[in-house]
Amino acid sequence: MSERKAKRVSESRTVMTEMVMPNDTNPMGNLMGGNLLRWMDIVSGICSGKHCEAHVVTASVDHVSFQKPIMVGDVVTLEASVTRAFRTSVEVYVEVFANNIKGGDARRCNHAYYTFVGLDDDHEPIPVPPVLALTEIEQQRYDSAPRRREVRLILSGRMKPEQSTEIRSFFDDMPRHQ
Amino acid sequence: MSERKAKRVSESRTVMTEMVMPNDTNPMGNLMGGNLLRWMDIVSGICSGKHCEAHVVTASVDHVSFQKPIMVGDVVTLEASVTRAFRTSVEVYVEVFANNIKGGDARRCNHAYYTFVGLDDDHEPIPVPPVLALTEIEQQRYDSAPRRREVRLILSGRMKPEQSTEIRSFFDDMPRHQ
Amino acid sequence: MSERKAKRVSESRTVMTEMVMPNDTNPMGNLMGGNLLRWMDIVSGICSGKHCEAHVVTASVDHVSFQKPIMVGDVVTLEASVTRAFRTSVEVYVEVFANNIKGGDARRCNHAYYTFVGLDDDHEPIPVPPVLALTEIEQQRYDSAPRRREVRLILSGRMKPEQSTEIRSFFDDMPRHQ
Amino acid sequence: MSERKAKRVSESRTVMTEMVMPNDTNPMGNLMGGNLLRWMDIVSGICSGKHCEAHVVTASVDHVSFQKPIMVGDVVTLEASVTRAFRTSVEVYVEVFANNIKGGDARRCNHAYYTFVGLDDDHEPIPVPPVLALTEIEQQRYDSAPRRREVRLILSGRMKPEQSTEIRSFFDDMPRHQ
Amino acid sequence: MSERKAKRVSESRTVMTEMVMPNDTNPMGNLMGGNLLRWMDIVSGICSGKHCEAHVVTASVDHVSFQKPIMVGDVVTLEASVTRAFRTSVEVYVEVFANNIKGGDARRCNHAYYTFVGLDDDHEPIPVPPVLALTEIEQQRYDSAPRRREVRLILSGRMKPEQSTEIRSFFDDMPRHQ
Amino acid sequence: MSERKAKRVSESRTVMTEMVMPNDTNPMGNLMGGNLLRWMDIVSGICSGKHCEAHVVTASVDHVSFQKPIMVGDVVTLEASVTRAFRTSVEVYVEVFANNIKGGDARRCNHAYYTFVGLDDDHEPIPVPPVLALTEIEQQRYDSAPRRREVRLILSGRMKPEQSTEIRSFFDDMPRHQ
Repeated sequence: MSERKAKRVSESRTVMTEMVMPNDTNPMGNLMGGNLLRWMDIVSGICSGKHCEAHVVTASVDHVSFQKPIMVGDVVTLEASVTRAFRTSVEVYVEVFANNIKGGDARRCNHAYYTFVGLDDDHEPIPVPPVLALTEIEQQRYDSAPRRREVRLILSGRMKPEQSTEIRSFFDDMPRHQ
Repeated sequence: MSERKAKRVSESRTVMTEMVMPNDTNPMGNLMGGNLLRWMDIVSGICSGKHCEAHVVTASVDHVSFQKPIMVGDVVTLEASVTRAFRTSVEVYVEVFANNIKGGDARRCNHAYYTFVGLDDDHEPIPVPPVLALTEIEQQRYDSAPRRREVRLILSGRMKPEQSTEIRSFFDDMPRHQ
Repeated sequence: MSERKAKRVSESRTVMTEMVMPNDTNPMGNLMGGNLLRWMDIVSGICSGKHCEAHVVTASVDHVSFQKPIMVGDVVTLEASVTRAFRTSVEVYVEVFANNIKGGDARRCNHAYYTFVGLDDDHEPIPVPPVLALTEIEQQRYDSAPRRREVRLILSGRMKPEQSTEIRSFFDDMPRHQ
Repeated sequence: MSERKAKRVSESRTVMTEMVMPNDTNPMGNLMGGNLLRWMDIVSGICSGKHCEAHVVTASVDHVSFQKPIMVGDVVTLEASVTRAFRTSVEVYVEVFANNIKGGDARRCNHAYYTFVGLDDDHEPIPVPPVLALTEIEQQRYDSAPRRREVRLILSGRMKPEQSTEIRSFFDDMPRHQ
Repeated sequence: MSERKAKRVSESRTVMTEMVMPNDTNPMGNLMGGNLLRWMDIVSGICSGKHCEAHVVTASVDHVSFQKPIMVGDVVTLEASVTRAFRTSVEVYVEVFANNIKGGDARRCNHAYYTFVGLDDDHEPIPVPPVLALTEIEQQRYDSAPRRREVRLILSGRMKPEQSTEIRSFFDDMPRHQ
Repeated sequence: MSERKAKRVSESRTVMTEMVMPNDTNPMGNLMGGNLLRWMDIVSGICSGKHCEAHVVTASVDHVSFQKPIMVGDVVTLEASVTRAFRTSVEVYVEVFANNIKGGDARRCNHAYYTFVGLDDDHEPIPVPPVLALTEIEQQRYDSAPRRREVRLILSGRMKPEQSTEIRSFFDDMPRHQ
């Protein structure tokens, strides 16, 4: 298959807003982590679908930690952008913000990297357009993507640690990767 | 607060069964990854709640990869067991199996490690009962838990890589940890 | 159609766990009976689908009474087992347990008998595998199934009371059938 | 507590209309029995709540059989009427009709008897207003209610069969009770 | 296509009853306006589908105002009736009533006019049966329908105000159209 | 109560993205109008809540027409901006765009004006911050808001047509108000 035309990050950036309803929370009124993971998957999936101009399926999600509670009635804003495409997959960076119901200062709550595979109508993987990273932060995420990819391949048992080439600097660089 | 009495893994093991409905899938009929992450969070949360005998909130989920598609109409079985408790948190191992609607051989689709924090009625963390690992596989997951915990602390920016003591063997051991 | 190979009860036993969410309850915080009936139908349907290795549709549910309240935040565990197959239908016994959110002693809340009909892809009834009852309780439920079936046929107007052969002992035996 | 003023059946009659959506059906497109049981419970609960002018909880549902399939896209109409009040409970008769999406002749699909208990704000049972049965069919259901009640008490283990006074005519009369 | 046989308003009148659940309300416990608009659309769509004996899609909703709050736990009753058919569309009048959970006096909360277009299986508009208005109120709504239709055509940019013939009396008559 | 500090339109602009799921559509696969009205209400409500820094309830929605179908699997983007505040209410303009699942050119499908009332914790209306309209289109919507408001007051029976001062130019100007 031929190479596809590169696309800018901004062309597929996707914003989703949700209000936390009672059924989204546990009995203490906290948004359940699984509901947030689901919303992050949906916004990332829409974003990667726009980039690929194709149906996509989730291939993986990297480590996610939940440090700031989100409560019933809060407004949650999720922003997803592609970071880099590999042959048939694309990595998406998703960030989560929350406000209390009465507006006011946004809290940044979470972020994660999801990866998706583009599929054709026969459910076969298709080539994904390359990502044009234009801003400095887009470029940083683009550059660090291969390292995250190696970690994923190792964690899912598809690469042996000793085969990694990107991974040496992993533990130094990871904390800065946002 | 004083140390709590240790509990066996089997005391809180939790099984959840779901049938994949149309709204759980993308337009190609694949279960959306985010819905699976949500179900994994619920079953793990119930499991850790039983272990802690307390309300819990999700603290993190480790890397999850989605390698075998699950289709509309499939029956999904999720099994969650605690692996090890830390002071106010507990790690849960969750495994996902799927069957097609007409029964037959179970496929193992996924697994993940979630961590939860036990809370009292004032939303303050509480001590969590230690885990008694009795079988060989329970013991393996118990023994490897501190290493996974260090990775989480590094990935969430709460530990510097150079402070890690468990991590040296990480890349060798990780692929075997299932 | 030829007779199908008998299957053990344990091969299709199905466990479902649900957390009672606000939308599952009435304004007093009680799980609505209809939601419990729905969950009982789903777990029984999955169980009978596994036994029949086919799509199934609900044919009937016997009398169900709701004696112990289940509250918002409770964890509900449902266990379904086939009891006996008739030509194209199978009876399922389903039992419901509840825990409060902080774990602790399971309450047994309900039980019911559902029946399902196995269907082929043209929506036509198909022969159902016989049930191998191995334990004492499985054998009891197997033996009492024809009597429950006669009651159903009478209650749904498909058998006249005077035609019944099993029913004479019904009122003596029914209260012991759990 | 003093006797409450009797109310006519028509004062609390309740009609509910639902369109069968994809998530309400099994993979063959049939409305799942459990969803119908849930809708029957909701419409009966609203009906009995109107009659009792109080919160109610489901006490039981009698045998329900599902003889005519209802398909995705069908319009389902449920009609609930109280039949007779006992001290703190009320019996409701609910009937289910379905149309295909393009209108046309209504099919009568199901019926059932649900019972509800009225509760005060402390979750304690309260006296329920007597039912005034005015039409012939209302009177028939009123007259046969004690017999159905005895069956329920026997089936739920709260009355011994030999204590029954109404039950002798049960098997003769039951098939006519619609 | 030939003219279709006229049908009475009563043949397609549709009643829907809903209980307001926690997820239907905002954090203050008020039914969200959008949920009411959705229920009004469903009941009107079923009503117009019955009249047209065809699939329908919503073409428009006229101005709706929300003057009386509806609270969590309230019972909402929606009644929809066709008012008048145009060539391939039909106008539906829908009225909303609410009761508090303990029954008692119905409040009239809202009303609106929705219009629907009947479609055949190729998604093409089809002729709609004329409406027979028999009662006085049905006749009033029938007579005022062309005026409402002109307003809609103007508001959606498909008619210029100066082309209107019905509209002169609009501002005098509109407040009485309930 | 004292006047509140004016806020820019951009401070509360809200974007929501939804993927149309099977349960959101009618049996022909069209997004049901009522679901779109509900999403428009949610995004407008969040937008007006941010502007008011308070809980809000929907006061009205103006005429909405549905001219371009939205299909299952489509991605729907909703954008809401405040246009003008009155004493205790704020008008929100919401626009709806749809893409097919494979990305590509956005279609503009709908728009509407919703109004909301800000409430304090006792459910009493509160003064709403004035809106600072900075761009040309913001200014146009700001200027035309009083005219739309008069129409609403007339349509909801709270103003007599002959009292209107803004309305004379209504039929000329309305079609341009987008």
